[in-house]
Amino acid sequence: MPQEIGRQYKEILRQYVMRQTEQNLYAGQNFSRQLIQKNIAPEDVISIHKVALEEMYPELPMNVWHSFDLLIEMMIRYGLAHAEHQSLIQQQE
Amino acid sequence: MPQEIGRQYKEILRQYVMRQTEQNLYAGQNFSRQLIQKNIAPEDVISIHKVALEEMYPELPMNVWHSFDLLIEMMIRYGLAHAEHQSLIQQQE
Repeated sequence: MPQEIGRQYKEILRQYVMRQTEQNLYAGQNFSRQLIQKNIAPEDVISIHKVALEEMYPELPMNVWHSFDLLIEMMIRYGLAHAEHQSLIQQQE
Repeated sequence: MPQEIGRQYKEILRQYVMRQTEQNLYAGQNFSRQLIQKNIAPEDVISIHKVALEEMYPELPMNVWHSFDLLIEMMIRYGLAHAEHQSLIQQQE
């Protein structure tokens, strides 16, 4: 996964955490559309979020980072379902 | 979404945060399979995770909770893709 994605997401997250405006929320929605187009799996989105948050708040307790690892594992199943969806669409084309 | 799911997930998360064993990880993977079967959307998984974490660590800075709200928005797009996948499968049955 390109480092550029992580950098862009961190900026979107930083803006949103500062101000929860419609515009900042829209930036996130728009970014997720781009990630889906690039075939970024949902568990990778959680990883990108975790990395951005770690850089922004390195002082958070270790348990918070452990909790993200479980969430990533949970999302892997959803990622598989999504990949299956992509392959179904390709079959129908 | 039944409150029972949140309660079960909180227990799985609590165990995993205490000890990152294969067994505790497996409990999470197994639980996510159940959630997919129940048509729980990926953004709902993030919400369940956020609520569990809020109950376990209410002292975390407000920005952490705001950050989860952005992640939930990001996942909504992935949820739509997943719902589309389910409807494709039903069409093929």
